[in-house]
Amino acid sequence: MKQIISKVSKMVTPDKTVEQSKKQIAELAYSLVSKEIKKYPEVIGLEFGGSFAKNTWLSKDADIDIFIRFKKTVSEDKFEKISKKIGFNSLKEYFPYVRYSQHPYVEAKIKNTKINVVPFYDVKSGEWKSAADRSPFHTKFMEKSLTPKMRNEVRILKTFLKANKIYGAEIAKQGFSGYISEVLILQFGSFENLIKSISKISENQVIGKTSKKFETSIVVIDPIDSNRNLAAAISDENIGKFILISRAFKERATLEFFKNKKSRISKKYWNNLLVVKFDFKIRSPDIIWGQIKRTTTTLSTQLELGGFTVLRSKPYTDQQKEVYLFFFLESIKISQIYPKKGPDFFRDDNSKSFISKNLKNAELVWIGNDRKIIALEKRKESDAVSFMTQFLRKNLQICIPKGLQSDLKRGFKVSIGNKNLSKSIKEAANELISINGTFLHFN
Amino acid sequence: MKQIISKVSKMVTPDKTVEQSKKQIAELAYSLVSKEIKKYPEVIGLEFGGSFAKNTWLSKDADIDIFIRFKKTVSEDKFEKISKKIGFNSLKEYFPYVRYSQHPYVEAKIKNTKINVVPFYDVKSGEWKSAADRSPFHTKFMEKSLTPKMRNEVRILKTFLKANKIYGAEIAKQGFSGYISEVLILQFGSFENLIKSISKISENQVIGKTSKKFETSIVVIDPIDSNRNLAAAISDENIGKFILISRAFKERATLEFFKNKKSRISKKYWNNLLVVKFDFKIRSPDIIWGQIKRTTTTLSTQLELGGFTVLRSKPYTDQQKEVYLFFFLESIKISQIYPKKGPDFFRDDNSKSFISKNLKNAELVWIGNDRKIIALEKRKESDAVSFMTQFLRKNLQICIPKGLQSDLKRGFKVSIGNKNLSKSIKEAANELISINGTFLHFN
Repeated sequence: MKQIISKVSKMVTPDKTVEQSKKQIAELAYSLVSKEIKKYPEVIGLEFGGSFAKNTWLSKDADIDIFIRFKKTVSEDKFEKISKKIGFNSLKEYFPYVRYSQHPYVEAKIKNTKINVVPFYDVKSGEWKSAADRSPFHTKFMEKSLTPKMRNEVRILKTFLKANKIYGAEIAKQGFSGYISEVLILQFGSFENLIKSISKISENQVIGKTSKKFETSIVVIDPIDSNRNLAAAISDENIGKFILISRAFKERATLEFFKNKKSRISKKYWNNLLVVKFDFKIRSPDIIWGQIKRTTTTLSTQLELGGFTVLRSKPYTDQQKEVYLFFFLESIKISQIYPKKGPDFFRDDNSKSFISKNLKNAELVWIGNDRKIIALEKRKESDAVSFMTQFLRKNLQICIPKGLQSDLKRGFKVSIGNKNLSKSIKEAANELISINGTFLHFN
Repeated sequence: MKQIISKVSKMVTPDKTVEQSKKQIAELAYSLVSKEIKKYPEVIGLEFGGSFAKNTWLSKDADIDIFIRFKKTVSEDKFEKISKKIGFNSLKEYFPYVRYSQHPYVEAKIKNTKINVVPFYDVKSGEWKSAADRSPFHTKFMEKSLTPKMRNEVRILKTFLKANKIYGAEIAKQGFSGYISEVLILQFGSFENLIKSISKISENQVIGKTSKKFETSIVVIDPIDSNRNLAAAISDENIGKFILISRAFKERATLEFFKNKKSRISKKYWNNLLVVKFDFKIRSPDIIWGQIKRTTTTLSTQLELGGFTVLRSKPYTDQQKEVYLFFFLESIKISQIYPKKGPDFFRDDNSKSFISKNLKNAELVWIGNDRKIIALEKRKESDAVSFMTQFLRKNLQICIPKGLQSDLKRGFKVSIGNKNLSKSIKEAANELISINGTFLHFN
């Protein structure tokens, strides 16, 4: 393991040239924004944030985050408007555009490096007004706490997480954030120790110190706020993958664990894939992802109640216009009849009402082996496409998040397979029906 | 209710003419057997048994049982041989034939009345040597305990049980015996009281007095042996039907409850009926029914393990040559894939071995919503006919009662539906897929 880690360590350290050019870009961007903020008395400072500030960035794909410090008395409206103006004006030469987190922020590319111009409030720790307010505290804490060696260990960890597709805090991904990576290295001292500890982690184990009780699979405490569980934002699936690959790596370390694998489009199971597609009016990614995740869960439950076996499901959106909900079904056609279990025949009132109620619609009624009265019912829909179509037509108002109802009312399409899916959509769906790289480490 | 019962009471009382003719037939048969037993010093007596002796018989279908009392020192072999000889010789004019219970006995018809000549041992109560030894004790007990009014109430009850197809102690039926009918009337005094009590009976309730604990749905103690539970021989399905129709009758008494209903052959669901057919070497009905019932249960379990949903199942045999096992399935074709749940990803050793083991054969492995690792497996058989055929070919020795293995080895046929079924077999199968009269009382 040590050998492999040391090899990777060399690979992930940015070389002098890259470091130099990154620094130049950062300084250029900083000076551009710096000029612009002078126009606004609401702004009282500017600082680097994220992995660049903490020197935990990876050669490739490293963004530069510039944080604009606003007086805490500024209204949210002004906070958004002014920061957008600053971003657009300062980076106007670089085709800036708006991105959405809790608040909108401006992004632009200088020589392939993304510059994010993000506003935050000048508040005391704990008195957060916007989601970005914590970030400068995180940056300061890591700047003073991480040793140079640890910074490189963070890079190794991030490479490991990225290669196994569990890196990224965005809601679409629900993976490990850069900050969690830093916290984990700080906590365990090195990548090797982290791997060893995660390999034998137990349910609900707490990493860090807190007096609060959390219910997540594992708990990672924010070192600057002992009441905050950073792992709450990570899906169980991603936590599970991290644990499984840590164990696999501990048992047999190879460079494979750090290489991005190209996913192959599955040839099988497309005929078991139910797809619901609709367009939506643009909103922030957090909002739309939250809505379509909830909708996917609801519709999976409804499919199960309708007699279908949902193996896996997931939503996808381009965050601009289209939403796709994917349901990988054991069968897209199920039997037209099913047994409905009633009460034990000893239960007088219940069995009477069960029999009377079901005799009308049921095809058959009988006494089962376990003394339960059973009615044979006919399904209204035994085909997944018509089931889903009917369900969405009839139950929009009851089962779908309010924010999506008008989008769905404008129309939706239910289909099977990949006939009408574009390449990127196909890739998203493909994840459901192909084997994940995580498990190949067990081969 | 009283009115209906009183009407039925008149209908079931044998009229003088029938009574007279029954008596004449009985005396004729008795005198014929009587002559014959004199040849055998092993035999020490002769007596009437069953419903004729107890005067609880119904006008139609009433058998006459003549019991031959053997010295208790006689060997089982002689017991069988001599009693057969007596039966055949005494009734030779009436085309006698052998029937099987625990021991063979001789039956013949005089003017449409069946005469059963049954051997038993002259033993003390409790020291039973053959299954028939209890019978004379039952007869004597009922002769002295039942009032004339009660005897007619027994007739009402038997008519009620017959009309609803839950009368008959034979293992093929597992219904209520004549003796249980008498015990129930003796216990509750009248048919009306019985109905009222059964309507509100609770689970495991004991009818009669005993210090022993029984596990059956209801318990009916034999008045001549407080350690014996007569209800043990009744299926839960039949107990359930009795309770349900008692409640329905109590709520709305009609003559319908006492009329035999002709069963209509279902037009539906034949395509959901899996049929296993094979021939067997003749043996006593108790034995073959026991074997095919156990086999039906085993094969139902196997079908369920194979992914099929067995709604109902039952065996049938003509008791001479053919056996049919019927399985009413939700679907005769099921999906080719199914999810196999593995351990929680926190369980280190288990999840490792689950993944390694399943990666080879599984189509997919993933982490489910509840942190369980799931493998997508392919079924070997997704068609019920091939599943059953393969199963019977490969697992005869493990899963089938020894006594049936050689019969099945000689060949079996697995099919769907009623194409090759004769009328009587079709009727037997029909019970599985049609609504039972019991439930129509709830309409």
